[in-house]
Amino acid sequence: MTFRAAALRLYLVTDRGLAGDRPLGEIVLAAVAGGVTMVQIREKQATTRRFIEQARALKAALDGSGVPLIVNDRLDVALAVGADGVHLGDDDMSCAEARRLLGPRAIIGLSLAGPPGDGFAEADYVAASPVFATGTKPDAGPALGLAGVTALRRAVPRPLVAIGGIGRHNAAQVVAAGADGIAVVSAVMAADDPEAAARQLRAAMDGRP
Amino acid sequence: MTFRAAALRLYLVTDRGLAGDRPLGEIVLAAVAGGVTMVQIREKQATTRRFIEQARALKAALDGSGVPLIVNDRLDVALAVGADGVHLGDDDMSCAEARRLLGPRAIIGLSLAGPPGDGFAEADYVAASPVFATGTKPDAGPALGLAGVTALRRAVPRPLVAIGGIGRHNAAQVVAAGADGIAVVSAVMAADDPEAAARQLRAAMDGRP
Repeated sequence: MTFRAAALRLYLVTDRGLAGDRPLGEIVLAAVAGGVTMVQIREKQATTRRFIEQARALKAALDGSGVPLIVNDRLDVALAVGADGVHLGDDDMSCAEARRLLGPRAIIGLSLAGPPGDGFAEADYVAASPVFATGTKPDAGPALGLAGVTALRRAVPRPLVAIGGIGRHNAAQVVAAGADGIAVVSAVMAADDPEAAARQLRAAMDGRP
Repeated sequence: MTFRAAALRLYLVTDRGLAGDRPLGEIVLAAVAGGVTMVQIREKQATTRRFIEQARALKAALDGSGVPLIVNDRLDVALAVGADGVHLGDDDMSCAEARRLLGPRAIIGLSLAGPPGDGFAEADYVAASPVFATGTKPDAGPALGLAGVTALRRAVPRPLVAIGGIGRHNAAQVVAAGADGIAVVSAVMAADDPEAAARQLRAAMDGRP
């Protein structure tokens, strides 16, 4: 596993609903220009065909940027477009199965809502989810809080990203609590200027005004 | 391609909603005893994890029976459980992509709602869908009718199965129109005695009373 924790610094998770009329690729490229270090495409309503089309467009947009593209849940989509990996949760394929099917070079992320069992062995990184309450994922479990981030940091020997209700106002706290980075949805996807939004999040994490 | 048209003779497509409290594996094994020649697991609501669990249970149930297990839409599920193939439609991955990812030995089926384009090149069989109106798949297109089955038979050089609103009363007509077999959902899944239902469908197709 050669996954670097630095890739988790600012992790953008897409949301078509928040993108409105704007193409996902346009928002994502602006966000990358502003400092996004990794991108996850998440589609909970799309057909398989549409999901593949969207993921393929993002893959093309990110080509050459060095920014990995991760697919939420759907290993079939990841394989079809040659994405860099998958992000999995409790309702998805196990990390062990995903590793067997994707091979050693794929990036596999795992959402954890509390103290982990042994399911993270094949994960390259884990996500504390959700840190705060969020409207973007109404089916998420109870918020872990900053103490939950610190607990996961100590319990799980993997790069750690925090997700859920994170914005400029609390990004530095989340990093101070032990996260290698933050994952955001609405803070960038819903921003009028995604590049500026990403830049401001990076500055907030670095303690810059 | 060594897929035999005989495998399409009586093709059972699962439906958890129609299964009620009965385990899918129980219904499917009874149906196989009654003459089902191929099984497709179709789950449009389940999480990926649950879909994999269900498919793995069916795969284990069918082990040694010689009856292929096909997964509707989800190549990730097919790969995870080692299914024999996938069945694809307009909203799913293309047959060409599926062939690339699954290799030459996988069975790939394609639903066709009318005169085909060139998308069936990598398909081992095609399905005329729907032949008649059906309540099982409310989003299906307009019914092809028996004339549509005959037209596909002539237009597509592939084994052909017909699906949609087929039961004992019209199974023989569908075969006479050119189908190598019929695919059924409710005619078996909703039957009190799935084995007897399958046996009666086979008899009806063979013109036996």
